[in-house]
Amino acid sequence: MDKSDRPIGVFDSGLGGLTVLAAMRRALPRENFVYFGDTARVPYGTKSPDSVRQFSREITAWLVSRGIKTLVVACNTASSVALDAVRAAARGVPVTGVIEPGAAAFAASGGRKVLVIGTAATVASRAYGRALRRAAPGALVTERACPLFVPLVEEGWSDPSRGRRAAALTRLAAEEYLSPYRGKGYDSLILGCTHYPLLKGIIARAMGRKINIIDSAEAAALAVRGTLAREGLLRRGGRGSARFFVSDAPARFSALAAALLGIRPGRVGVKRF
Amino acid sequence: MDKSDRPIGVFDSGLGGLTVLAAMRRALPRENFVYFGDTARVPYGTKSPDSVRQFSREITAWLVSRGIKTLVVACNTASSVALDAVRAAARGVPVTGVIEPGAAAFAASGGRKVLVIGTAATVASRAYGRALRRAAPGALVTERACPLFVPLVEEGWSDPSRGRRAAALTRLAAEEYLSPYRGKGYDSLILGCTHYPLLKGIIARAMGRKINIIDSAEAAALAVRGTLAREGLLRRGGRGSARFFVSDAPARFSALAAALLGIRPGRVGVKRF
Repeated sequence: MDKSDRPIGVFDSGLGGLTVLAAMRRALPRENFVYFGDTARVPYGTKSPDSVRQFSREITAWLVSRGIKTLVVACNTASSVALDAVRAAARGVPVTGVIEPGAAAFAASGGRKVLVIGTAATVASRAYGRALRRAAPGALVTERACPLFVPLVEEGWSDPSRGRRAAALTRLAAEEYLSPYRGKGYDSLILGCTHYPLLKGIIARAMGRKINIIDSAEAAALAVRGTLAREGLLRRGGRGSARFFVSDAPARFSALAAALLGIRPGRVGVKRF
Repeated sequence: MDKSDRPIGVFDSGLGGLTVLAAMRRALPRENFVYFGDTARVPYGTKSPDSVRQFSREITAWLVSRGIKTLVVACNTASSVALDAVRAAARGVPVTGVIEPGAAAFAASGGRKVLVIGTAATVASRAYGRALRRAAPGALVTERACPLFVPLVEEGWSDPSRGRRAAALTRLAAEEYLSPYRGKGYDSLILGCTHYPLLKGIIARAMGRKINIIDSAEAAALAVRGTLAREGLLRRGGRGSARFFVSDAPARFSALAAALLGIRPGRVGVKRF
């Protein structure tokens, strides 16, 4: 097999990384993907850095053993606290997280004042702050954890077709988290969690519509395309595919992937650690 | 050491079991407790029964090795799907879950139509339904999962002092879950998750105030007192104590225990599996 035919590995704490996979399949339609969601230990956002590093190392070793050509850490929490551990476990396979690409997209936009929203662990790690200060020196950076957003998305309450009450409470949650930053001169907001693109419209309204919303998933997809091009590893022909593995509850994963993202994963394999 | 001086073991998927511990300390003020919260793998409510059984067996073996005289499974999910596995791992130490005592409390109340609310895993297990049909044959039982309630409590948004917007969205979440059952003749509601006692008032209002709200924690505490009395293992003198262990992030556990429950756990030990 030509090395460029090998799959791209993508891992996440659970289901949310499917937004990153979807962005990558749009940017790289010829590529084959193998996706792993750590549904036995989800969420990572409230776990300690040590635990997230241990989980990430185990998953990386397993994906590398499957012959991937590059690895994408779709989970913002793992990208924040475990990227070094993942690189050490990847045995030379190139690794892309979602933090640096998100920070680079902000720098390229010419923005000056940015709010980063994410899980408790991502925000506590200050990883976006460090990456943003390197990519855009002088930028003003604020980070805010929004723990209700993930379960709101997973309940389907962010979907306007769910009805008026669900829409109202999703809007109130966005306002509770974001109103302290509205009208304070923020030109950009980074969606620092894989679930948040599904709340993009509600977040934009809570901040006042003129804000530039940066989706780390889109930015990471472009970064991976650049890495593969530089290494001569872009797949040249054919139509891409995706295979799915989880560490627990494959039926729940399939049902949520279909309901929230319109993705039908087909047979979902189970790999326990 | 007299056998009655041995501690009572209590375990939960995380922090929520502290409501069960608090109920037990009220009912059994002379007893010593050792509490374990599996914060590395919390929540259990979205995990598969196999995973919850494996986690529960590991924790049981460790608590039994510490010389407990009885074991309380505070977690509704583990009580629903793993009680047999816990009993097998407990090597003869008596085990009390929260499901059977909750069902017995409903039966004793003379109720006829009951709504049980809990996590996705507790509801999917139908364990309350089975226990209620045994305890109160002929009762009408409905079960409903309410996954937003745990993160709402952990954000502190169920606390009225948090402000009007947080109160409004907590109320809307309760209405979104419960309004389909309001005015439909339910005389009782069982709080089938350790976090839910902190939402008791909001849940009562969403159902219409005349409903009898049954807290499984209170019922389980009385069941444990009965078990210890029958076995002659009640501690006769002195003032009880509690020691705390978690599998991850002890500082977060301490902070949430203080903020939500007013419990100051002191030094929290870490035991990883």
